[in-house]
Amino acid sequence: MSEVEETLERIKVQPGVEGYVICDMEGQVLRRFPTMSQETAEIYAEAMRHLALKARGVVRDVNPKGELKYMRIRAKRHEVLVAFGEE
Amino acid sequence: MSEVEETLERIKVQPGVEGYVICDMEGQVLRRFPTMSQETAEIYAEAMRHLALKARGVVRDVNPKGELKYMRIRAKRHEVLVAFGEE
Repeated sequence: MSEVEETLERIKVQPGVEGYVICDMEGQVLRRFPTMSQETAEIYAEAMRHLALKARGVVRDVNPKGELKYMRIRAKRHEVLVAFGEE
Repeated sequence: MSEVEETLERIKVQPGVEGYVICDMEGQVLRRFPTMSQETAEIYAEAMRHLALKARGVVRDVNPKGELKYMRIRAKRHEVLVAFGEE
């Protein structure tokens, strides 16, 4: 099993996890949680793409050498964790 | 001591904390870490204001009833935690 598959398996069994999406920086969905629809995955991918671009800019505003690694957005009932791969 | 003062004291003594800024949704600095310059506080307040507005929109795109509570942005050497008060 590849490292990606192992990581996805570990994420899947975490209590409270409702889904995951792997996408590229253009918001193209590459992988999604088995029970998540393509449409939902695209909504999350597009939303996080916009936020990620903004967050990367903000990190650089504050520290030009800064590199965005991780983002966590907590709403009342849900939380989205965004991890960034190498560019 | 008020609840705000107590909270700030607790934050100050947390290992690794380099500063804090309290600002309103317009990015106006209301309080800042004693050794942080007003200029630095304003940079963070303005940067986080933009990101917070974007994040709030993203949360609502994904779930119209969603309400942004907390945001965590991890860069290589720094991390910014943003907590939102009641509107």
